[in-house]
Amino acid sequence: MDKVRKMERVAALTKIMTDRPRYLFSLSQFSELFGAAKSTICEDITTIKETMGHFGLGIIETVAGAAGGVRFIPKVSDTDTDNILHELAFRLAEPDRIIPGGFLYMSDLLFTPHLMVKVGEIFMQRLAHLEPNYILTVETKGIPLAFMTARAFDLPLITVRHGSKVTEGSAVSINYVSGSSKRIQTMSLPKRAVPSGARVLIIDDFMKAGATARGMVDLTNEVGAKVVGIGVLVATAEPEHKLVADYLSLLILHDVDEHTKITDIRPVLTSD
Amino acid sequence: MDKVRKMERVAALTKIMTDRPRYLFSLSQFSELFGAAKSTICEDITTIKETMGHFGLGIIETVAGAAGGVRFIPKVSDTDTDNILHELAFRLAEPDRIIPGGFLYMSDLLFTPHLMVKVGEIFMQRLAHLEPNYILTVETKGIPLAFMTARAFDLPLITVRHGSKVTEGSAVSINYVSGSSKRIQTMSLPKRAVPSGARVLIIDDFMKAGATARGMVDLTNEVGAKVVGIGVLVATAEPEHKLVADYLSLLILHDVDEHTKITDIRPVLTSD
Repeated sequence: MDKVRKMERVAALTKIMTDRPRYLFSLSQFSELFGAAKSTICEDITTIKETMGHFGLGIIETVAGAAGGVRFIPKVSDTDTDNILHELAFRLAEPDRIIPGGFLYMSDLLFTPHLMVKVGEIFMQRLAHLEPNYILTVETKGIPLAFMTARAFDLPLITVRHGSKVTEGSAVSINYVSGSSKRIQTMSLPKRAVPSGARVLIIDDFMKAGATARGMVDLTNEVGAKVVGIGVLVATAEPEHKLVADYLSLLILHDVDEHTKITDIRPVLTSD
Repeated sequence: MDKVRKMERVAALTKIMTDRPRYLFSLSQFSELFGAAKSTICEDITTIKETMGHFGLGIIETVAGAAGGVRFIPKVSDTDTDNILHELAFRLAEPDRIIPGGFLYMSDLLFTPHLMVKVGEIFMQRLAHLEPNYILTVETKGIPLAFMTARAFDLPLITVRHGSKVTEGSAVSINYVSGSSKRIQTMSLPKRAVPSGARVLIIDDFMKAGATARGMVDLTNEVGAKVVGIGVLVATAEPEHKLVADYLSLLILHDVDEHTKITDIRPVLTSD
């Protein structure tokens, strides 16, 4: 009977903790929920920790002290990461994705939940050392990806808008020249969205020259916050020198040939 | 020793299944992963099913037959639903959210992952009987909410854009008069995004007169698909008659008083 109860606690604890990655749960909270001693909960957590480790499903981290507790940190294994990036590269190279002008249609993949859950976890894993406290993106196509990254970090997302919106209150704006439209555009950030001193991680779906990312960096500086890193799903190989100094790209787009319908896109693998 | 193995399988199965709601996993897949007989996996699943039921964490559904398997369906209890809606109403009534023109600043909540995870699950729970196979929204603020609903359904999201984008290929467009800007606007949907005959569920953050929702319905019909339902986080009490016949709203905004800074917003509770 006791064994069954432990089994139940282990299943429930796994569900609750993995549901909210990186959020610190207190042991007292669990102790109360299950009517079990803290030491018992600790044993349960150890079981879950070993299992997650054994099957490569994630990490359980224990934080000591009065404000301590336990949290689940998603982990995508190297093999799984490489498989997902290979799958994305393979699908993005499908001939009918090529749109006149040499663009690639990516929206279907960017709006598929289970793919973006994984990509968000990959970004979190590779960029957690930068210790951001906000994730920033620009509308529109990058939002799901950035939001899943924010979820993996348990951080709020901030979305830069094109132009200035009446429903967002006072905002800071800058002008930039977008790579895809070649026109001068405006992007804006509500003043209240980012506190000064915030550590911001930029996540976006695509980077060519880096003008949009550069705009986001300038906008972040403008409100007194700091960009600690940039992650993009796809970056083009050319131009080699982007308008931002440092970024992580999961896929590199080498060439889109509208005539032959061949797209050369390659994953940046964990073994690279 | 055998008990430990079962415990490990239960923890791992819980993680894997709850990670991808509504996705049908085959028992063979699990049987192979754990090197255990299908009957053993079935027993594990029963344990998880009972636990999820006991703690109100979700439902495990077994689908019989050759193409069968098991899947996890998120469930937010009535108490949790009411708590979340009360919290959202309380926070949306904060005086400093009122923006000149009587708008409410909602972006911070709309871009907070753990809140939108729950709201997405609430929408899924209340609207699953409509059996959609696509979730549709319009850029920008509703995207995280719609994406988390799509995740809870394990369905792809389609995002209607303002204007027409060069990177999306050929699109269908319509004009509509937006409630917030009072201007004639264009919204468009890439032709390839929705197959004809698709059953579409519209999810958005806000509805006043319903012009934007009406536009999305028209656009969906235009591509030969069908809107099976509409869910919005906040709908205004006035005008009572919206431009769409039927919709589900989780919160009703009765009044925003710019002078007194009092916002009257109420949750639509499960007991109502």
